[in-house]
Amino acid sequence: MAADPSAPRHIRLTSHASGQGALPIRWGASTPAERGPIVGTTTKRSHRNVIGTHSGSYSVYRALAVAAGALNRDHKADLTNTAPTDQIGPYPQWTDPGKIVSLDPWGATVAEVFANELAAGYDIRPTIAVTKAHVILPEVIEAIQKGRLKPDNRILLEGGAACVTKAAIEPVWYLPGVAKRFGCSESDLRRVLFEETGGMYPELVTRSDLEVFLPPIGGQTIYIFGNARDLANPDVELTARVHDECNGSDVFGSDICTCRPYLTHAIEECIQGAQRGGVGLVAYSRKEGRALGEVTKFLVYNARKRQVGGDTADQYFARTECVAGVQDMRFQELMPDVLHWLGIRKIHRLVSMSNMKYDAITGSGIEVGERVDIPAELIPADAQVEMEAKKAAGYFTPDVVPDARTLKETKGRAL
Amino acid sequence: MAADPSAPRHIRLTSHASGQGALPIRWGASTPAERGPIVGTTTKRSHRNVIGTHSGSYSVYRALAVAAGALNRDHKADLTNTAPTDQIGPYPQWTDPGKIVSLDPWGATVAEVFANELAAGYDIRPTIAVTKAHVILPEVIEAIQKGRLKPDNRILLEGGAACVTKAAIEPVWYLPGVAKRFGCSESDLRRVLFEETGGMYPELVTRSDLEVFLPPIGGQTIYIFGNARDLANPDVELTARVHDECNGSDVFGSDICTCRPYLTHAIEECIQGAQRGGVGLVAYSRKEGRALGEVTKFLVYNARKRQVGGDTADQYFARTECVAGVQDMRFQELMPDVLHWLGIRKIHRLVSMSNMKYDAITGSGIEVGERVDIPAELIPADAQVEMEAKKAAGYFTPDVVPDARTLKETKGRAL
Repeated sequence: MAADPSAPRHIRLTSHASGQGALPIRWGASTPAERGPIVGTTTKRSHRNVIGTHSGSYSVYRALAVAAGALNRDHKADLTNTAPTDQIGPYPQWTDPGKIVSLDPWGATVAEVFANELAAGYDIRPTIAVTKAHVILPEVIEAIQKGRLKPDNRILLEGGAACVTKAAIEPVWYLPGVAKRFGCSESDLRRVLFEETGGMYPELVTRSDLEVFLPPIGGQTIYIFGNARDLANPDVELTARVHDECNGSDVFGSDICTCRPYLTHAIEECIQGAQRGGVGLVAYSRKEGRALGEVTKFLVYNARKRQVGGDTADQYFARTECVAGVQDMRFQELMPDVLHWLGIRKIHRLVSMSNMKYDAITGSGIEVGERVDIPAELIPADAQVEMEAKKAAGYFTPDVVPDARTLKETKGRAL
Repeated sequence: MAADPSAPRHIRLTSHASGQGALPIRWGASTPAERGPIVGTTTKRSHRNVIGTHSGSYSVYRALAVAAGALNRDHKADLTNTAPTDQIGPYPQWTDPGKIVSLDPWGATVAEVFANELAAGYDIRPTIAVTKAHVILPEVIEAIQKGRLKPDNRILLEGGAACVTKAAIEPVWYLPGVAKRFGCSESDLRRVLFEETGGMYPELVTRSDLEVFLPPIGGQTIYIFGNARDLANPDVELTARVHDECNGSDVFGSDICTCRPYLTHAIEECIQGAQRGGVGLVAYSRKEGRALGEVTKFLVYNARKRQVGGDTADQYFARTECVAGVQDMRFQELMPDVLHWLGIRKIHRLVSMSNMKYDAITGSGIEVGERVDIPAELIPADAQVEMEAKKAAGYFTPDVVPDARTLKETKGRAL
């Protein structure tokens, strides 16, 4: 028999045929039936075809629920009425194994596309959920009051609520594809994931036949302003922001960075874009503090504010590197996957100044038109340090790139 | 030799004396020297005295940084200038092994209290970071404009920024103590944590000598309005909210729940309390969607909105239970630990209606005075379903508890 290049590369320990064992996963296959479901159940071990389990880090709380006697460990989710409110895809990107490696494109519609497998007793859970919401932001209400936004009772209601479709997406990593993105071998990736987490999931190194990993990390949430299917139409103007979580600013409004002001500005841009016939998107990734976590972030704040000469832009990245060993751990390599899941081929207005995000998006084959920077009046005084440092390091700016002297003179508040 | 009740219960595989091996941890010991440092390093395995590693789920990103060749795996954090901006403790609660089981009370001051061990080459990292911030919330600015809040240039500045001390806290679980809180045996807890996560950290079941676990989950952030040391003084009025993360409302203002309005109301109460000579506290826990995660949360939204009869309060908990198997996975059992870390003995004004939080706090020995409910005008129309359902299930309310008919008639918006 001739070698089939689309066949799995590793020896499968179990087969589909018997109906008793784990179903194979053929990442990027052209139909869900050929791809096979992601089975991360903890109730029937013989059915599992992944490393890890569902709900990201919340599997730990699920364990506590069992320990406390509150949850029956054999509970199977009743998926009645939970199907997506909007159809998303399928798009050609879904079956291109290089375009999507960190989420399951069929994750929102498992009840439909894997109905047979569910009926056969496999515990298949959605890794994506799509719903509708009304979102009310004080900054949007202020924009209405100041006349920048006008309610149209379609995208934006009189009371200030914006109507959105939103989706929550859990990470589903196809390890050979993730390794390729990071330019390392799959076996190196597996070993490092095991070792650098202090020994999480030995299956990473012992079960090379399991190619899919559900990592215990936060996922993404997307907010769509306008019609979800327009995202895939390059002729419809798309305004988009890819935003990385910053609890201190996004929720509490800390003035040391521009996270919330830029996010709410992007939402204003998305609403305006949708109102003029386009569509808007915010993709929010759970990568607190550049994926260094909040403890490291606060340590860096102290080191910045207390260093000799004060918190100056020229030392901004150096302080992070001293504490964390790197300037940034967000690695935008996997970020464009969610855009491909939505079928996006062109972003007309990218509300982000990050060169790393821009490079990742365009490098993955998505065209980017205009880049929208944050209006100067939205930058808190203390956040100028970060802004100038980033501009000097390659951030997009229509203004002059700050020189060494400006970086030295741009100084934040002391503690 | 007589048995020492404070001695570790398990056989240690390594000893302190040689200076080469893992240092013992004696949870709840009366001094940091006796307690010993938490060593979760991935660089020198023989020094590790815990299961898991630092930074919660962000250890996975740390691994990616190594895989990508961006981070030297031997990097040691340079902790220069990172020490806490405010002294917190030590308090008697720190050395009571039953009061704190899910964080390391010495986690903010490792550079100081474990200076000898650091000098001896142990890679000891802070699990808590304490810093200062200015937080600017549009809701606070509105409260100033409407005259409810007045800047005093101490707690609240003219421009609307509130001055806070904040701390990020990573989970550090002492497994025997966590098991006790959940009313199960330590071996059951270990087995369930292993099995229900799909096999995370086999050391949970194979290394009973390692009693401390750094779980890959989100931690907590606290915001203090006023003087941190006043938190431990029961004679100083303390206004406090313990808030569980809800990204959809906290950041995006979804109107299906009261999370952000209640949070911003609590911040207003904290500022007022601090201005009249008291102190305010918000403790924010990363427990998205009742610790079920956002995918489950959105699935439940769809099930609620589409069920026969619509989204009514009488079916509110049933829909979560169908999908998730439980009504709630937040388990407030561990939440009071952070309050004990701060030395709190009395909360004069608890800005929360949750009976589960109230029971956990008072059950842990902290006195609670007044309970402050959310003002009616801050409850979005669509959030009445949740509010009425919770009141009927035991939430604190000064109003009438809704009866069966009210629950049936309290109905939310359709999709």
